Amino acid sequence: LKYDLTIPFARYVAMNHNQLTFPFKRYQVQPVWRADRPQKGRYREFYQCDADVVGSNSLLNEVELALIYHTVFNRLQLTGFELRVNHRKILAALAEVCGGVDKMTDITIAIDKLDKIGLEKVKDELIQRGLTNEQVKTIEKYLFVTGSNEEILTGLKSLIGNTETGKKGVEELQFLIAQLSTHNIDLIIDPTLARGLNYYTGTIFEAKAPASVKIGSIGGGGRYDDLTGLFGVPNIPGVGISFGVDRIYDVMEELNLFPADVHIGTQVLFFNLGDKESLYAFELMQQLREKEIRCELYHENNKFDKQFKYAEKKNIPYVVIIGETEMTEKKCKIKRLATGEQETIPSGFLKNYPF
Amino acid sequence: LKYDLTIPFARYVAMNHNQLTFPFKRYQVQPVWRADRPQKGRYREFYQCDADVVGSNSLLNEVELALIYHTVFNRLQLTGFELRVNHRKILAALAEVCGGVDKMTDITIAIDKLDKIGLEKVKDELIQRGLTNEQVKTIEKYLFVTGSNEEILTGLKSLIGNTETGKKGVEELQFLIAQLSTHNIDLIIDPTLARGLNYYTGTIFEAKAPASVKIGSIGGGGRYDDLTGLFGVPNIPGVGISFGVDRIYDVMEELNLFPADVHIGTQVLFFNLGDKESLYAFELMQQLREKEIRCELYHENNKFDKQFKYAEKKNIPYVVIIGETEMTEKKCKIKRLATGEQETIPSGFLKNYPF
Repeated sequence: LKYDLTIPFARYVAMNHNQLTFPFKRYQVQPVWRADRPQKGRYREFYQCDADVVGSNSLLNEVELALIYHTVFNRLQLTGFELRVNHRKILAALAEVCGGVDKMTDITIAIDKLDKIGLEKVKDELIQRGLTNEQVKTIEKYLFVTGSNEEILTGLKSLIGNTETGKKGVEELQFLIAQLSTHNIDLIIDPTLARGLNYYTGTIFEAKAPASVKIGSIGGGGRYDDLTGLFGVPNIPGVGISFGVDRIYDVMEELNLFPADVHIGTQVLFFNLGDKESLYAFELMQQLREKEIRCELYHENNKFDKQFKYAEKKNIPYVVIIGETEMTEKKCKIKRLATGEQETIPSGFLKNYPF
Repeated sequence: LKYDLTIPFARYVAMNHNQLTFPFKRYQVQPVWRADRPQKGRYREFYQCDADVVGSNSLLNEVELALIYHTVFNRLQLTGFELRVNHRKILAALAEVCGGVDKMTDITIAIDKLDKIGLEKVKDELIQRGLTNEQVKTIEKYLFVTGSNEEILTGLKSLIGNTETGKKGVEELQFLIAQLSTHNIDLIIDPTLARGLNYYTGTIFEAKAPASVKIGSIGGGGRYDDLTGLFGVPNIPGVGISFGVDRIYDVMEELNLFPADVHIGTQVLFFNLGDKESLYAFELMQQLREKEIRCELYHENNKFDKQFKYAEKKNIPYVVIIGETEMTEKKCKIKRLATGEQETIPSGFLKNYPF
């Protein structure tokens, strides 16, 4: 059972790298699994939707992926979502400044817990992981780099900008911020964003649900320099993002963002007033279906009352009634349930009726 | 891990029967698993697409489901598919005529193997399962009922039509055949169709791939009288069909039915002729995307040759070229790769260009 779509994708690319045209772009929607204890927003089985580009180092890919997040969330009317970014090279530079790149994993793992356990416990953990008080102070200083994006970039520069790695990380974030601001899109630089996954090497993304919904992350991603190396094909860089489809669904439900007509499955219900009448109705219904009008025939010859109730319960806006008289006269009665309006038209006109 | 979508659906209906409006209809597309040894057409993980109606005994549901098969296969241009039907009541009547309803499972299981092991081995199996020679003769007679639907119905009637169950089964098939023939749709009555699953109680369906593709079944289904009874809620009848999505994909690939333009992902490639030029192109690209034109910007400032090769390999029909001159003059060059035609237009007109 897959736990994400990135590693299987890397395997696919490694196995097929001779046939693929690079940069290779793909999207994928599929269920994945976690052994976590299930609870709200944390499911055993859930759907992820990924978009990745491999075979290109260009930061334009990061720009495009950020735009995809932005476009999708805006179309879903998730106003108030946040797109946070950080850079693995900045975290690497922090480790370097602290006294060694070998500290990076320890620092990343501890910082990643800041949200959950708070600053003091992060500091405790860093000490336990063998960092000195001096080093922890540097990390604390780093975690306190706040303000506008401009201020954060300045703060980061003064803290880690004298390393090659740090300089590169800051520059790349700067480029990304600048490009997106030309599209009036705000990214939030968040130095505390670490992401547990060790395959990331460049920009890292996190998409957060609007603050009013306490569900946290609804997407994430980042750049990975050598994911295919795992499968014996080194040196194919990539970058990708992921949407947590089920959580996004939860958020939309909580914020009442599903449009009202999403619950209208059937637009037209044909009443069933007997064997012959229903077969006649069936033919007309097929004509509407060919026009992509969603309709159904009530399944048995039941009381009017019961058929009306069915339409009401299912929120079906129109009812078409064909009794013996209508059948003989080749007419049908259309009733609009919301208003009670009713009219009789020739059956031949039904398929052009403005439902 | 689910092995089908019917049982989980029955569970859902049982758990929610107080809130649902009956007849309840739903479709569902989802992966399912089999522990089989994987081979062509037989996968460990594969997608099923189901449509079911529960809470109604009406045969109109069977008519509609058969129409769904027909509509879908026709839209996929799978000419030559076969829709076979039989009826569990006919098989039950056969058991009755043979000397007892308790024989039905044995008879069904043996008949279900006819395709694979042939008549003689089916007869051996029936003997092994404790049926007498006399009984096996009756079953053999049943298996030899062939001809047109009319002839088969007559044959079945004379063999099992004097039982209540058999009469009902034949009548229901007759109704189904008649209804569908008014839509010019042929069903094939196949008395040897048994289906292993024991929850079926009425009509059973099997959809077969065009004979030229040796893959067999691409769908199946039937009526089940009491599937929710498994979950403590008895007396909710239902009927449903399933599509084997992966096998249908295999069939379409083998018959070359995917349209050629399915392989055109990107319609327009913007060339990358430098930092400034590419950002200018990026803006124009966003305008096209808003018009739902699929386009991309080549990821780096590379040789013309390489960018052309990328377009060619990816089957991209149009290329837009913006160099320094075009940028200053607010123009862009459009090249149609198939013909080599080329024209220069004002950038402002690009979004209305008939790509």
